[in-house]
Amino acid sequence: MNERLEKQKKFILEIDKEKNIFRQTHLTGYKRQENDAEHSWHMALMACLLSEYANEEVDLLHVLQMILVHDLVEIDAGDTYAYDDAGNATKREREEKAADRIFSILPEDQAKKMRDLWEEFEAEKTPESLFAHVMDNFQPLALNDANDGGDWKRRNVKKSQILKRNARTKEGSEEIWKCMEEIIDRNVKKGNIIDE
Amino acid sequence: MNERLEKQKKFILEIDKEKNIFRQTHLTGYKRQENDAEHSWHMALMACLLSEYANEEVDLLHVLQMILVHDLVEIDAGDTYAYDDAGNATKREREEKAADRIFSILPEDQAKKMRDLWEEFEAEKTPESLFAHVMDNFQPLALNDANDGGDWKRRNVKKSQILKRNARTKEGSEEIWKCMEEIIDRNVKKGNIIDE
Repeated sequence: MNERLEKQKKFILEIDKEKNIFRQTHLTGYKRQENDAEHSWHMALMACLLSEYANEEVDLLHVLQMILVHDLVEIDAGDTYAYDDAGNATKREREEKAADRIFSILPEDQAKKMRDLWEEFEAEKTPESLFAHVMDNFQPLALNDANDGGDWKRRNVKKSQILKRNARTKEGSEEIWKCMEEIIDRNVKKGNIIDE
Repeated sequence: MNERLEKQKKFILEIDKEKNIFRQTHLTGYKRQENDAEHSWHMALMACLLSEYANEEVDLLHVLQMILVHDLVEIDAGDTYAYDDAGNATKREREEKAADRIFSILPEDQAKKMRDLWEEFEAEKTPESLFAHVMDNFQPLALNDANDGGDWKRRNVKKSQILKRNARTKEGSEEIWKCMEEIIDRNVKKGNIIDE
């Protein structure tokens, strides 16, 4: 096998581990938690359907590639729960180390490309990364709503925490943020989200 | 919420079920079987890295969209094991019925678009669909090889069955097929695949 393909195959097997990184969000039906690979697939398919709501026109291929790689660093760094302040304080450091190890398995040009996609997602500056973040936030919100707020109730999540997390969602898509606000308000009324 | 987004949201929640459709292939480490959502994410990321080996230049966005939707019909039709002859005889009929139900949840234009992507994948005529099939076959082969052929041994898989399944893989990518042949031959030598 050629050396380049050998490296790519090694990376492909390494990233299989993303299927073992479980998130706080449960699947619809609340039988089990979702893992990062499932979450990324779901976000990617959502992006294909919802990119029409991005505030600025986005390059969908670029959005998809960013979504597909955005959680790979969690293979080493683990999933940091959105509302875990201590975990979030060390997140960047842990994830950078993970990116160094994981992406460097690839041939140099592709390692750089994957790293750039991840950094772009993290920096949240381009229209594509802003829209990818909308998907990253809308996907668990929709699942949680379908589960009658099970994950919010379990973790005593406050409305202020969700709003802080979504401070920039509107910059990616005003239309989807409107829909998300409806969901949040409905769940506050039901007592699923704490409005202190 | 606008009516269009309401339909899209309903579809997004419906397809969450793909995470419960388990395949015969095991994850690396052989602890559990893989589901369709994980498989699709893995294929999509592989396509980003390996499209350089497609025999003909492919539209990567089109490949990714096809991969992301290709297994949705299994939500109703279930996963049909590659080497289950009885199951494969009724597969098309079961999957068409599933496509009718699942895609019609979407607004009409997107229902058509998703259906067209699935039909194109199934027909295996365009360079993009041929390449998507290469990913669909290479992904479980690589996992199985990493698991010392566990799934082949468990199901007594014959080399002739794998070659039949991959009769057209070479049309999508000669380079990747060469790599797959090496894997198959190595596993035949080890007795993981039956060469009768």
